[in-house]
Amino acid sequence: MSELPLRVGLLGGGVIGGGWAARFLLNGVDVKLYDPDPEAPRHVDRLLDNARRAYAKLTVLPLPPEGSLTFVASPEEAAVDVGLVQESAPERLELKQRLLAAASAAAGPDVVFSSSTSGLRPSLLQAQMAHPERFTVGHPFNPVYLLPLVELCAGERTSPETVSRAAALYRAVGMHPLALRHEIDGFIADRLLEALWREALWLVHDDVATVAEVDDVVRYGAGLRWAIMGTFLTYRLAGGEAGMRAFMEHFGPALALPWTKLVDVPELTTEFLDKVARQSDAQAGGRTVAELERERDDSLVAILQALRTQGTGAGLTVAAWERGLLDLVPAPSAASLDGDGPLALYSREIPPDWIDYNGHVTESRYLDLLGEATDALLRYIGVDSAYVGSGGSYYTVETHISHLGQLYAGDRVQAATQLLGWDDKRLHLFHVITRVGEDTPVATGEHMLVHVDAAAGRASPVRDGVRWRVDALATAQAGLPRPKRAGRRITL
Amino acid sequence: MSELPLRVGLLGGGVIGGGWAARFLLNGVDVKLYDPDPEAPRHVDRLLDNARRAYAKLTVLPLPPEGSLTFVASPEEAAVDVGLVQESAPERLELKQRLLAAASAAAGPDVVFSSSTSGLRPSLLQAQMAHPERFTVGHPFNPVYLLPLVELCAGERTSPETVSRAAALYRAVGMHPLALRHEIDGFIADRLLEALWREALWLVHDDVATVAEVDDVVRYGAGLRWAIMGTFLTYRLAGGEAGMRAFMEHFGPALALPWTKLVDVPELTTEFLDKVARQSDAQAGGRTVAELERERDDSLVAILQALRTQGTGAGLTVAAWERGLLDLVPAPSAASLDGDGPLALYSREIPPDWIDYNGHVTESRYLDLLGEATDALLRYIGVDSAYVGSGGSYYTVETHISHLGQLYAGDRVQAATQLLGWDDKRLHLFHVITRVGEDTPVATGEHMLVHVDAAAGRASPVRDGVRWRVDALATAQAGLPRPKRAGRRITL
Repeated sequence: MSELPLRVGLLGGGVIGGGWAARFLLNGVDVKLYDPDPEAPRHVDRLLDNARRAYAKLTVLPLPPEGSLTFVASPEEAAVDVGLVQESAPERLELKQRLLAAASAAAGPDVVFSSSTSGLRPSLLQAQMAHPERFTVGHPFNPVYLLPLVELCAGERTSPETVSRAAALYRAVGMHPLALRHEIDGFIADRLLEALWREALWLVHDDVATVAEVDDVVRYGAGLRWAIMGTFLTYRLAGGEAGMRAFMEHFGPALALPWTKLVDVPELTTEFLDKVARQSDAQAGGRTVAELERERDDSLVAILQALRTQGTGAGLTVAAWERGLLDLVPAPSAASLDGDGPLALYSREIPPDWIDYNGHVTESRYLDLLGEATDALLRYIGVDSAYVGSGGSYYTVETHISHLGQLYAGDRVQAATQLLGWDDKRLHLFHVITRVGEDTPVATGEHMLVHVDAAAGRASPVRDGVRWRVDALATAQAGLPRPKRAGRRITL
Repeated sequence: MSELPLRVGLLGGGVIGGGWAARFLLNGVDVKLYDPDPEAPRHVDRLLDNARRAYAKLTVLPLPPEGSLTFVASPEEAAVDVGLVQESAPERLELKQRLLAAASAAAGPDVVFSSSTSGLRPSLLQAQMAHPERFTVGHPFNPVYLLPLVELCAGERTSPETVSRAAALYRAVGMHPLALRHEIDGFIADRLLEALWREALWLVHDDVATVAEVDDVVRYGAGLRWAIMGTFLTYRLAGGEAGMRAFMEHFGPALALPWTKLVDVPELTTEFLDKVARQSDAQAGGRTVAELERERDDSLVAILQALRTQGTGAGLTVAAWERGLLDLVPAPSAASLDGDGPLALYSREIPPDWIDYNGHVTESRYLDLLGEATDALLRYIGVDSAYVGSGGSYYTVETHISHLGQLYAGDRVQAATQLLGWDDKRLHLFHVITRVGEDTPVATGEHMLVHVDAAAGRASPVRDGVRWRVDALATAQAGLPRPKRAGRRITL
């Protein structure tokens, strides 16, 4: 992630600006934030809490040390000593122009400037800036810390290098930058979103459906496809083997049917506003915005992980971000050794989808915990991507689990790991899983691993670099007592 | 699933009609299908294969015995001796009216008729029918066997009872029926979809983005939210604590911005058709429609499962469908006993998302297999929902796994299960996992389970009904040799 600056400046700390703060901070970048609203710090704190919670579920890899958040008193201060200034002020052209002019006058000429505007033209936004060539639109989507898309749109005076520098920056914090081919109002996403939104308003206005029913039509139907393939590739499938042109020719005439009222916008009378607000309250069913945000984030994380297993769309973005995180994982140091005690290399929070119908963690997830603890030990002894890439690896051949207590969603657990024995081809490990801060084990795992030559598909001797680290670990732990539950057999 | 008829008649076997056939057949309903296209049987077969593959991943529960598929020579034959006739002919009013008139004249007056039309008014479709009061629109979405939504729209002469009967029927095959509050062209979904589609065509027409870029804007951005919350609830969150009315008042003015070209439709000139087809070919990158369908289905299944773990939207529909399947699971009979040998109660296909970066099944998934095999044994000895509901259950306290071979996506595996011992409070089990049709074990699992009173949270004696079945099983298996790997301890 060499593209990452050490520090960014944010202008505006609302839903979008606060979301940017969370994304940068959790990716290890310091944030200087200017927002005249006295409520902004409270607001950003809440978003940051949401983001921490979501990222703990999104990846099992350790995040980099969180960046520091500083509130500053002026746009100028936010622009000094940073690599990027991201403006997320309310959608008023004059306000944004004023902020960008002030901040750009204070910033060095190399600082990239980007606006989160959802539709204002970059050529207008950059008009009063110092060094307007380093300005682009970078339009993200709520929640900014989870949704990967950021639309890049260059203005008349934007240099191509600015767009590519901004894209690299956004990619480094796990986003999917997409550059428009030319400048238009509303960019791509908001033109699509507004089209849907206007039609949705008419359907409610005309009492064809309530707001909850319109949402259900989306989320039980086409919305499920949109997350995967968008609209063109989805329709290609409707055309069958004949392809896209056949689909267009076949269904093209329906485009001219008078199904839509899109040319008009329903008038926002008091009665209509009351209707939408009343139906929306009923739909929310007493859930607060904070509760709804967490529900949304949990489902977003689950969908992102589902798409990652399939190698589809936004799942690819998450996978690329995780590869970047992996590079940041420091080789465990002697500091993680608790004297000569068991190694504390692994800790994680129990995600909500690990729970069975009883409310406990599902039986099989204990092996997930133990397997991840074993992976942490393997990284520790030098089985890294280079070692695996060269064909060396350890495979588990035998496992003995003792289930000693129940775990619940949100519990934070850790493993204490002991090497019970080793030889040229084998590792004999023992993990004790406890809740962080407690001593009572909730599970233990005993494991035999065999070193393999993955290409040849058979057991093979461990190679020197790893061998030395295993030897050093065995020496360090030689004085530890044998765990009570080691060597158990199952019997009545 | 008492609402399910034994047999349905389908008029039309294209992408939609074939999808209906697959959904009904896999839910155990016989299908009579009329389609004059000689290619229809091949087409339906392909969709049925897709659906079988998807359902094997969607649930670990056994499906009911597949219904039988019969092609019939006339619409009249499709309407005789069935509970529902579903019409999915091409979108031409006269054709649909003619098919519905012919079929309804042959059908008993109680047969429900439903049309898959994506936008034609039910009042026009029912005009020439016998007993038009039993007609409704039931508009599904591709792929019909996976997407839950079906829009119900009554015509002027439709009886309310028809709509509720159709809704119950669709619910019984795992769908989410949603009834419009009054009749309009295009219903709800296609008005929303067409709005998005027209705007998308303009963006491509004007070279703002390619078709792949428009799709990426959807699937890396708002499409991820749409699967969860639709459009109104999503925007409620943008309004923050102030609520929906505040959001509308704040963002309402943007509705009037000239961002859209929706009033017009781009002319489908040869040049424009060529452009869309060329870009779509590039996007598909050589993948055939069949390949794209499978990618889409795999991702849909993964998203449906993700939403089920969160209790969100379409995940709730899948959960309700599974509860219905559970009621259909027959109590295992003596027939599943292979003489006095180990019990063959459990078999499943390895889904693609069980695979690690090496292409093998992830280590922890072996405990999923063994846990599911244990669950099958528990159902067999009478630990059913009534027993669990009354507070009795078995918890696993110790597990010993031997990993003896690799498994890959698509492998079908089975467990052979042996009771090694039992007493009032304990069960000692041994599973051997093999590929179906092979003898070499890929894994074995040895397990100690303790009977608990879940409410009291402590071990308790097994109750009589289950005790008797355990006793009978122990007697039947008394002569079996002890498995070679039973009682192992891990040691170097």
